[in-house]
Amino acid sequence: MQTDLIAALDIGGTKIAGALVGEDGQLLVRAQRPTPAKENAGVVMGAVTEVLRELTAAPEWPRAAGLGIGSAGPVNASTGTVSPVNIPGWREFPLVAGVRETVGTDLPVELVGDGVAITAAEHWQGAARGRAGALCMVVSTGVGGGLVLDGRIHPGPTGNAGHIGHISVDLDGDACPCGARGCVERIASGPNIAARALSEGWLPGPDGDATARGVAAAARAGDPIALASFDRAAQALAAGIAATATLVEIEIAVIGGGVAGAGDLLFEPLRRHLKSYATLSFVSGLEVVPAVLGTDAGLIGAAAAAAQGLRLPPFATGA
Amino acid sequence: MQTDLIAALDIGGTKIAGALVGEDGQLLVRAQRPTPAKENAGVVMGAVTEVLRELTAAPEWPRAAGLGIGSAGPVNASTGTVSPVNIPGWREFPLVAGVRETVGTDLPVELVGDGVAITAAEHWQGAARGRAGALCMVVSTGVGGGLVLDGRIHPGPTGNAGHIGHISVDLDGDACPCGARGCVERIASGPNIAARALSEGWLPGPDGDATARGVAAAARAGDPIALASFDRAAQALAAGIAATATLVEIEIAVIGGGVAGAGDLLFEPLRRHLKSYATLSFVSGLEVVPAVLGTDAGLIGAAAAAAQGLRLPPFATGA
Repeated sequence: MQTDLIAALDIGGTKIAGALVGEDGQLLVRAQRPTPAKENAGVVMGAVTEVLRELTAAPEWPRAAGLGIGSAGPVNASTGTVSPVNIPGWREFPLVAGVRETVGTDLPVELVGDGVAITAAEHWQGAARGRAGALCMVVSTGVGGGLVLDGRIHPGPTGNAGHIGHISVDLDGDACPCGARGCVERIASGPNIAARALSEGWLPGPDGDATARGVAAAARAGDPIALASFDRAAQALAAGIAATATLVEIEIAVIGGGVAGAGDLLFEPLRRHLKSYATLSFVSGLEVVPAVLGTDAGLIGAAAAAAQGLRLPPFATGA
Repeated sequence: MQTDLIAALDIGGTKIAGALVGEDGQLLVRAQRPTPAKENAGVVMGAVTEVLRELTAAPEWPRAAGLGIGSAGPVNASTGTVSPVNIPGWREFPLVAGVRETVGTDLPVELVGDGVAITAAEHWQGAARGRAGALCMVVSTGVGGGLVLDGRIHPGPTGNAGHIGHISVDLDGDACPCGARGCVERIASGPNIAARALSEGWLPGPDGDATARGVAAAARAGDPIALASFDRAAQALAAGIAATATLVEIEIAVIGGGVAGAGDLLFEPLRRHLKSYATLSFVSGLEVVPAVLGTDAGLIGAAAAAAQGLRLPPFATGA
């Protein structure tokens, strides 16, 4: 039988999704379970196994040439283990070995962090298509990312490269839960946009929405504190994106996630601040654009990352 | 005749050096001229041509398989032009075309920035030998660098990647001549170490040395202002190195240049601060070590970069 599909798993703190992915990025068979994130390691793995069993039961399963896993991080591709911050039961959990128990040891498996998966998806089918150098980011509850270098995704030896949320752009800044100070995430994530606005005296509107979405609504109505909080997030993102471009040379930064959904409220000040930080000749042409793929990006990207990592022929040119 | 050598040019604001480099990194034939840095473009190119003529006149010249150029930046490898900050007569200067006029168009030529060249040298023959991921830096009058990713140097499309001196680690910090704020170089370069100490009230010793070397001598004698200035430089370097490791996954940072010559005065606080900024599991094992190659690193590295970029067989395994 022709092996023209790649199986994909997208493991997050809220849901565990699986699919068989075709060579144009279409999702042929899907399965999904809520993540039992508070439960012990075995219960969480049980949900993964249920998703995999749905996939392996599908008539298309024998067409799978490999399996890609994109997981909340940190991950360790070299040991096949994951320690997702938001799944406390999994610490150095042997996910790849657990997956192999269900799918067999013949199928090659590739593990990457979720930021790398999103990047692989945007590079294969989205806003970074055809780009030799790109940074793709998710700005949401957290800030994650991944890199395309020399026309290929760069997962790094452990599958975590592109972790822009935890680079410090303010070395004396506020303490970050990661242990450092002034990380991009500590300034630009949705919860930090909301917390900063609240601490500066912003009051939520009649709907009581005290999240970044509420701040965005207030900013659109001209509230100066809300505008300032988005501006500060944009400044931190600009400094981080400029640092990335200066270090590895990228031509485009692609931003998705809930905070990016605020549109020009984020992108306008971001492009303005970027002019201040991306000053050297070889980075001054850097573009910043919204992501185009939605919630399926994690699955599409897990397949694309597997295609690259495992050198699978059906995807060899596209991914 | 066997083509077992690579010609190399190292172009800086002080000197223009050339050599024929053997496959163990030895320099067989050397030539050097002072850089007429204040003169017009043609005069500077004249000095390069003189160096090249000495090399082409050597009996070993026909053994050259290619020519590598490491130049003060910014450079543009895609157009073959250079615009070194400290050679004002050269702006978008067509250096590669000028070199070809002397050496002929048959010899393949590779251009990279000087930070990339130093990195290629340390990876081929120095402290980053055998490493899959490395950042190599020079901390001196300026701060430069380059990257090794997946076991190969990563010059980027224009040959400038690894430009760590101009990433911002203090987004509200002091204005940098590049136009940004709080760049690593603005905090950690030798002149900035000296200027900060002086502005905080440090007084040079009896020898009148008001440079970073004088600050280092005072720090060794226990002067608290001098110690604090080195500590601040180390903190900025630590934040920049941690950001690099978090973005691309490196296992080692190699630091050379005059400021690194201060030894433990720099490396002790640097390693201490690095623990604060490199917090994620996949970067916590990062090593920081002094560079081992001296002033010939630029020539050795220009040859190594050419060997990689041009896929030259004699160096294919080593570089």
